[in-house]
Amino acid sequence: MTLLVVGSVALDSVETPFGKAENAIGGSGNFFAASASHFAPVHLVGVVGSDYPMDKLVPLQERGVDLSGVEQAEGSSFRWRGRYTHDLNSAETLETHLGVFSHFRPKIPEAFRNAPFVFLANIDPRLQLDVLQQVERPRLVACDTMNFWIESRRPELLELLKHVDLITLNDGEARQLSDKYNLVQAARWIMERGPRRVIIKKGEHGAFMFSEHEVFFAPAYPLEEVFDPTGAGDSFAGGFMGYLAKTGDISTANLRRAVVYGCVMGSFAVERFSVERLLEIGTADIQSRLQQFRDLVSVEEELGAS
Amino acid sequence: MTLLVVGSVALDSVETPFGKAENAIGGSGNFFAASASHFAPVHLVGVVGSDYPMDKLVPLQERGVDLSGVEQAEGSSFRWRGRYTHDLNSAETLETHLGVFSHFRPKIPEAFRNAPFVFLANIDPRLQLDVLQQVERPRLVACDTMNFWIESRRPELLELLKHVDLITLNDGEARQLSDKYNLVQAARWIMERGPRRVIIKKGEHGAFMFSEHEVFFAPAYPLEEVFDPTGAGDSFAGGFMGYLAKTGDISTANLRRAVVYGCVMGSFAVERFSVERLLEIGTADIQSRLQQFRDLVSVEEELGAS
Repeated sequence: MTLLVVGSVALDSVETPFGKAENAIGGSGNFFAASASHFAPVHLVGVVGSDYPMDKLVPLQERGVDLSGVEQAEGSSFRWRGRYTHDLNSAETLETHLGVFSHFRPKIPEAFRNAPFVFLANIDPRLQLDVLQQVERPRLVACDTMNFWIESRRPELLELLKHVDLITLNDGEARQLSDKYNLVQAARWIMERGPRRVIIKKGEHGAFMFSEHEVFFAPAYPLEEVFDPTGAGDSFAGGFMGYLAKTGDISTANLRRAVVYGCVMGSFAVERFSVERLLEIGTADIQSRLQQFRDLVSVEEELGAS
Repeated sequence: MTLLVVGSVALDSVETPFGKAENAIGGSGNFFAASASHFAPVHLVGVVGSDYPMDKLVPLQERGVDLSGVEQAEGSSFRWRGRYTHDLNSAETLETHLGVFSHFRPKIPEAFRNAPFVFLANIDPRLQLDVLQQVERPRLVACDTMNFWIESRRPELLELLKHVDLITLNDGEARQLSDKYNLVQAARWIMERGPRRVIIKKGEHGAFMFSEHEVFFAPAYPLEEVFDPTGAGDSFAGGFMGYLAKTGDISTANLRRAVVYGCVMGSFAVERFSVERLLEIGTADIQSRLQQFRDLVSVEEELGAS
């Protein structure tokens, strides 16, 4: 089944202890699409400036990502420059130029409007709501958000929550949104405002998926080298939503599997700059990493347990 | 099989956002013994001052903990006063009085020396080494340590590593000891210095067990209320070592189960002050929490996986 994602299509310049990348393709839309394209046909909606190196998106297109919803507008592209020091957990933002992204109004092409799976990546909640006006009732809508919108667009974000099935956000954002430090309480607070499920991403510490009656946890894989954490969360979302779109199954058991696929894709994303690693891997790599995730938490039942 | 633990037997005064406890029984030895006593006969070696309320240890004794190695010396008991603010992740130490603990020289009673399982809780590495001189070759020796010893007794700690099968320490301590930020690298560094296995405790983020060829991860249970985190690590170690001593099985498969039992016992410890909750629970509570841990990470295999 097809998967629609609306998000940023940016150029990232990143410095880590291991090297530098200049103007590499980035943004939530690109990471999500590169990741999800391993599972399902992806329709990407976003905006780039007249300076965007469109040829760098060709590999995405070759992987089945439909870019006809990526508008090229007069002006400069969204650029982000950041740096990670040795803990690699939090980026220091050095520069952000929104460019054409500051006037972005997503227009969902006619052909994309009946996508059964929709992901509203981290953009202004007013635009996320606007996208929902344009699409036909999807089977599952999920959204992401960030600290900036929680602070500056709280009423619109709370309105959005009424219309999504699931939200992904990181632990700090869940705490900020709910004003609850405890994540179980934070997730409940959020679910009471609309979404039936909440995925709380904890970076290197894994991810929780909460629903009314249960909680699921998947660890992040303990990699020996984390090269560049940029885009890990969006790659997680791409693997998660991609797997759901591929299987068309939104049962709880399958959502759990999807979370693990999300963790698998996040673990690949951080092994290189930009979407490099996501574009390089194939099904065998994904299945082999999936098996590593299973082994990581596997416990044989005891015989004659007391 | 019996389990010998050498550690501190202290009095803790703790303040959390939920209340206060004054002079409650604490210290690594007490938490470990209270936890491990659910699985195996425990022999506790430690020291208390002439002011120690020995009657408070009776419940431990009733649970099968042999206290004949707890020496009562002239002077004041080891006391710790700490406070947790709302994140509950790190304690602020307000006061530490070592008292008789500062002159502690563990004397292992004759009857304890052939214990097949030995845990050297967090004390001076010189004393941990001294204990190893006194015991007969156990089947498995594990130790814990802390930032203070890593800094002040580094050579002795490195000597100790040559003589233990396993070490438990938290993520910050593993990084400090190895000078590696990445935990996979930190664990390898430590294993190269002796122990065949390293357990890295990450508090609310769960625990890793590393060995040469594999890694296992168990999450901490996402509790809605964490009441007092004091002693969680020692209760983890008690559950882990207790389960090994109970089963007498040190296969990799069983060590993985033991880590989960460790997480189970840690999750109980934080639900009340001191060892209160550990003394209150029974087998049914432990098995029920164990099932919750299993459900937390359980993923059904897909049919016809691609």
